[in-house]
Amino acid sequence: MTPGERALRRARAYLNRVAEPPAPALADLVGEVGPVRAARLVTAGQVPQQVLTETHARREEDRAEADLSAISALGGRLVVPEDAEWPAEAFACFATPMAQADERWRAPMALWARGAGRLDELGERMVAVVGARAATGYGEHVAAEFGYELAEDGFVVISGAAFGIDAAAHRGALAAEGRTVAVQACGLDQAYPAGHQGLLDRIAASGAVVSEYPPGVRPARHRFLVRNRLIAAFAAGTVVVEAGVRSGARRTASAAAALGRVVMAVPGPVTSALSVGCHLLVREEQAVLVTRVAEVVEVVGRIGVDIAPRLSSPPRRTDGLSPELLAVYEALPARAPRYPEQLASDSGVPLHRVRSALPLLELRGLVGCGVSGWHRVAPDARRGGA
Amino acid sequence: MTPGERALRRARAYLNRVAEPPAPALADLVGEVGPVRAARLVTAGQVPQQVLTETHARREEDRAEADLSAISALGGRLVVPEDAEWPAEAFACFATPMAQADERWRAPMALWARGAGRLDELGERMVAVVGARAATGYGEHVAAEFGYELAEDGFVVISGAAFGIDAAAHRGALAAEGRTVAVQACGLDQAYPAGHQGLLDRIAASGAVVSEYPPGVRPARHRFLVRNRLIAAFAAGTVVVEAGVRSGARRTASAAAALGRVVMAVPGPVTSALSVGCHLLVREEQAVLVTRVAEVVEVVGRIGVDIAPRLSSPPRRTDGLSPELLAVYEALPARAPRYPEQLASDSGVPLHRVRSALPLLELRGLVGCGVSGWHRVAPDARRGGA
Repeated sequence: MTPGERALRRARAYLNRVAEPPAPALADLVGEVGPVRAARLVTAGQVPQQVLTETHARREEDRAEADLSAISALGGRLVVPEDAEWPAEAFACFATPMAQADERWRAPMALWARGAGRLDELGERMVAVVGARAATGYGEHVAAEFGYELAEDGFVVISGAAFGIDAAAHRGALAAEGRTVAVQACGLDQAYPAGHQGLLDRIAASGAVVSEYPPGVRPARHRFLVRNRLIAAFAAGTVVVEAGVRSGARRTASAAAALGRVVMAVPGPVTSALSVGCHLLVREEQAVLVTRVAEVVEVVGRIGVDIAPRLSSPPRRTDGLSPELLAVYEALPARAPRYPEQLASDSGVPLHRVRSALPLLELRGLVGCGVSGWHRVAPDARRGGA
Repeated sequence: MTPGERALRRARAYLNRVAEPPAPALADLVGEVGPVRAARLVTAGQVPQQVLTETHARREEDRAEADLSAISALGGRLVVPEDAEWPAEAFACFATPMAQADERWRAPMALWARGAGRLDELGERMVAVVGARAATGYGEHVAAEFGYELAEDGFVVISGAAFGIDAAAHRGALAAEGRTVAVQACGLDQAYPAGHQGLLDRIAASGAVVSEYPPGVRPARHRFLVRNRLIAAFAAGTVVVEAGVRSGARRTASAAAALGRVVMAVPGPVTSALSVGCHLLVREEQAVLVTRVAEVVEVVGRIGVDIAPRLSSPPRRTDGLSPELLAVYEALPARAPRYPEQLASDSGVPLHRVRSALPLLELRGLVGCGVSGWHRVAPDARRGGA
């Protein structure tokens, strides 16, 4: 690493901690003068009022070296926009006028990451599967299935590593030996939730655990909302599996919409409080209803390549009959024979057309003719002869 | 009854049986020359080729008197468009250009009815609840709840009296002492399905059992499809509770759409084959997703009068806090005190604003101040003093 690169890294680490993300004024300053000069100006307090407000509380605190040592000790790294690993393509969504119009949807200053996967590669074909912590067995089942099948289809599953839906989605992807990414709302040393240290390690083994927050930062509710924009930005589409009335799901949906990402919601029983949020998203036209991974892939996949196969069911024997043939067939009772005259009367089909319909039905093996008239042929009846 | 009225009734009864509904050419002829003259022309075979095709098989068979006697014996009646009881307002949907454009959506020639309710009155505020015969416990529960609550809200529930969803909806309405209407795909003497004779009698006690088919006509698959258009026409909106991939639900949806009626679908578990049809209707934008009766009422109810109340949940203590106040509050650990300087650093909120935020949070009972700094106040803590 050249001294210039080291200085850049230090500056990004400082800037990443000096303001609570997202810090739109600071982001603008960095965009204007670059990170090294911006860091110097912030430290000196020689910045516009907006930037001062964002950075005032922490500007004299420089923990950049300590943070970089801490992430190294965790086996992780700081990924900055100047790196080849930066997920530039995925994060291009932050630069659109729609995203820029709202201060909540700013790109992160840098990302703390650990894991074997490169963020730029992981970000190429990513789907988010998120939802309630207090999920039901149904929700966890669906999340795990979606995680598994998405991974099988070559997608990287991204989520928040929380209890419930998030964990089920990560685990589903891991079960398919797929790669998965967890975005945390705290420093990577925090192991949040505590019970998921093992899961996070398994995620990192082939994928990545990522956070906008430097080591030491505790999770807090507002950080989850800020974090959710990163999940929305990384993923081509976000699937909400279960969500209560009050949940981050609707905010994630607005983030995704502002970032030009599609939101999908999985329905569930209307008797389940954990599906209310999903149904609301669909009703309010903020999300597309999805029931299978093929439908997700159809939405996020490459146009013309990934199309959900039509649902089908075993064919019926009467499939493809014209309405008239069907009417004649239906006029035959299940177990009693009928003469054409009766069939014409019962079906309302003119007699001469009943007479021509019956042989056609016979050709299809649906009816037969005996001494007392025409009768239905049972589906399982084996006909002898040729 | 005058001789003229009697002749009209006889003519409608004859025309109702002479062609299998819907018979668009015959309907046009009746529209042109009136039912009495149309019946005479059909009997004589002096009709255009299209009408001849529709009526050929049965035109020499005049069972009008027998049918009228049969319906009387059942305690029922023939309701014709010339009657005050005819649901003219509901059936106005058959006369729109959209409905007229498709031969499948013609008004019935007459209706066979039994029951205490008048069809014109019952048709004023009607909602259809339909779905699979092989319903799940979930589907039957939802159908019964919807039937009950719609009846409580003063709606007449209309359905097809089939096993499963239909029966649950009728029973729900009856349980609320509401009125309900069953539309059958066979003659009213057929008691179809056989196990529902008691249910049909209870429906007739305050509502009505109705059919386009004269006494003696057996149920057949094509008749169910034809029948479904009557349910769609009667009701302001049709709710599909459960439906498989292949079901009448999607045809009912096209009928409803052609007749200018709204279709609603109730979601269910994506793991249930009986919810696939409902989810398809929503995905294909043929139906609005509904989860509660209030949402149904919002769709079919009078505009401005019936609006579904917003869903809500118990308020959180931190509801209404500004993002800055929330950030300061969240920076406080659950069980350890902090000084303002630490809070400013942890939250990213400038120190002077942390200092003004803390008393505001204290006023709300969220934080307290002790010798070792500020701390959170537990939700259940009783504060002494005034």
